[in-house]
Amino acid sequence: MKVELLHNTPLHMIDLALTKCWDKEVADPRTRMYKVCNKYKHSSALEHVSLTFDIDGISRACLQELARHRHTSLTVKSTRYTLKELRGDYNPLDYLVMVGNSFIDGMNMLHLKRVQEALLDGVSNDVVKYMLPEAYKTSLVWTINLRSLQNFLSLRTDRAALKEIRELALEVFKQVPEGHKFLLEDYVKEG
Amino acid sequence: MKVELLHNTPLHMIDLALTKCWDKEVADPRTRMYKVCNKYKHSSALEHVSLTFDIDGISRACLQELARHRHTSLTVKSTRYTLKELRGDYNPLDYLVMVGNSFIDGMNMLHLKRVQEALLDGVSNDVVKYMLPEAYKTSLVWTINLRSLQNFLSLRTDRAALKEIRELALEVFKQVPEGHKFLLEDYVKEG
Amino acid sequence: MKVELLHNTPLHMIDLALTKCWDKEVADPRTRMYKVCNKYKHSSALEHVSLTFDIDGISRACLQELARHRHTSLTVKSTRYTLKELRGDYNPLDYLVMVGNSFIDGMNMLHLKRVQEALLDGVSNDVVKYMLPEAYKTSLVWTINLRSLQNFLSLRTDRAALKEIRELALEVFKQVPEGHKFLLEDYVKEG
Amino acid sequence: MKVELLHNTPLHMIDLALTKCWDKEVADPRTRMYKVCNKYKHSSALEHVSLTFDIDGISRACLQELARHRHTSLTVKSTRYTLKELRGDYNPLDYLVMVGNSFIDGMNMLHLKRVQEALLDGVSNDVVKYMLPEAYKTSLVWTINLRSLQNFLSLRTDRAALKEIRELALEVFKQVPEGHKFLLEDYVKEG
Repeated sequence: MKVELLHNTPLHMIDLALTKCWDKEVADPRTRMYKVCNKYKHSSALEHVSLTFDIDGISRACLQELARHRHTSLTVKSTRYTLKELRGDYNPLDYLVMVGNSFIDGMNMLHLKRVQEALLDGVSNDVVKYMLPEAYKTSLVWTINLRSLQNFLSLRTDRAALKEIRELALEVFKQVPEGHKFLLEDYVKEG
Repeated sequence: MKVELLHNTPLHMIDLALTKCWDKEVADPRTRMYKVCNKYKHSSALEHVSLTFDIDGISRACLQELARHRHTSLTVKSTRYTLKELRGDYNPLDYLVMVGNSFIDGMNMLHLKRVQEALLDGVSNDVVKYMLPEAYKTSLVWTINLRSLQNFLSLRTDRAALKEIRELALEVFKQVPEGHKFLLEDYVKEG
Repeated sequence: MKVELLHNTPLHMIDLALTKCWDKEVADPRTRMYKVCNKYKHSSALEHVSLTFDIDGISRACLQELARHRHTSLTVKSTRYTLKELRGDYNPLDYLVMVGNSFIDGMNMLHLKRVQEALLDGVSNDVVKYMLPEAYKTSLVWTINLRSLQNFLSLRTDRAALKEIRELALEVFKQVPEGHKFLLEDYVKEG
Repeated sequence: MKVELLHNTPLHMIDLALTKCWDKEVADPRTRMYKVCNKYKHSSALEHVSLTFDIDGISRACLQELARHRHTSLTVKSTRYTLKELRGDYNPLDYLVMVGNSFIDGMNMLHLKRVQEALLDGVSNDVVKYMLPEAYKTSLVWTINLRSLQNFLSLRTDRAALKEIRELALEVFKQVPEGHKFLLEDYVKEG
């Protein structure tokens, strides 16, 4: 998988917002943001900062879980329109997430050949897509605000999370600008 | 697929809400609700009525699309926990949506046998799930309010929609109580 | 203030949803709901249950705070359309929340007389409404699901909350059906 | 009132998102964004762009309406904490929106003097705030994405809207970067 940060709102938007309702004298911006947003749970101020990521090469299985976070915006590569890519020569590694079990990876590659056959046979994308294994790769642009990202990291960096989405969550955190991380790191479960 | 209405808020909640801000004399409740909510687009009053459905036997492909409607609540059967069902004898019709193309349906059935083999071989659900074809069936409880349902029906009964979700949308509309339908029917594209 | 429960979704909708993804054998429904939703934070299942309240006689000050809870639906009596009520004889107690300080309550009553004068003088509601004191009473129909209600109760029954909205939150909790309360009571700060 | 744009996401985030699911060849970015988002109603891609505004000097009446748009983030100056400002000398024009009717404006200024008296008398902010007229000014940081802004402009630039929020909506539109306006202008009702 590849995660790239495309844009982030500058952090001081949060502090500009906080100084509407909190005394400016209290502290330096960083301390104020941490205290007010994370300690006093005035979390709505975190919504002023959004991050947009390009996420590439996650599986449809992982997308199923990602899409359940409703306070985010997703624009996803559509299998209904892009399956035609499989009609020519293709490298299975570009289209399938490998799970590291040779039986499963092999069977998925074999099944993808059958997908190609069906496409070459003229079956429409809308029907062929029912064959795609959950390992099939997808790609999306994903926007999330800092408040929702705290929740996402807290649930998805947990060891109980599906391995791939945990990997994604940790990678997303890694791509967050260094200066934003102090508002998120309490929610990340590493190791 | 099987769609069953489990619960609906009584319709007069909307009218009770409207009489807070609109003259009671204007008309009978039905006319008032239609006029205020649908014509004058005071749509938020429609949010007072929710419907909860049991949806069974839709494909993971269809779930991908369903889950993108963020103003709804879904509780979905988890493949991470329920794949063990495939370890014993199973009827493929209970687990796979048939698309009516014998090559595709046959290949999916064959692939599902491989899923079973992997499970019997002791591979964990979290890994085996990467083999599941998009035709694999799932089941969920789904709650949606009338405002969000207008939007859902409008997008998903359209002829451009994926066939299965269109079928689902029409079936959901069918299960709506008769008395609620006049608020929705303008959004349904039949035929 | 007067709070009346108009409708609630039956509680077992949550349990029907949970048995999609959790073993039925685990426990009795009540224990399962408490454990899965409140302990394991599978909170989205709580969204299947909504409650609709008729709230009458809260101040505009209290409404300002209530309206900031965005995962709720409000239909509010509009001052733009209902100010005409003040043109005839009126009882100030029907229109103003009394704060129990005779200077403030007296000044508000006096100011309301000036509102009446302006109305009788033919000034339009849209202009006169700029005179209304925050103590001016309003009325609304309010729908909220159990997940959002946990959050509302937790923030608004806190001693740091504005007295009136704390009173409202405690009254809302009181009106919740007895059988639903075990899912909420951990979030209520009484005393 | 004073509206200042504090930050906006660059517009090409939307186009980056669209090229995930639409052919790049179709057209130039501007035409593609307009066609896909506004004509084909693939509106979710508009959510990748947010705008943050500093809004100063609107009335509490206007805030009541603004806060009803739930797909936005508000951080508002709190009257509970800032009323102390009125204890010293103050210019009523800094604290009250003038409606241009001398009776109403005069009565509001008089009432504000009573607010000051109560504060100097030691009554707590939480109680005194019940006297504030709806003309009392407030200030906020407001973040909204382009999709929600289309809806906001459409409802609030309408001639049926309250004059002040219509003025606000038109001013917000004016502050939007020129390059973003083609996605919004169909929703603005001027004149």
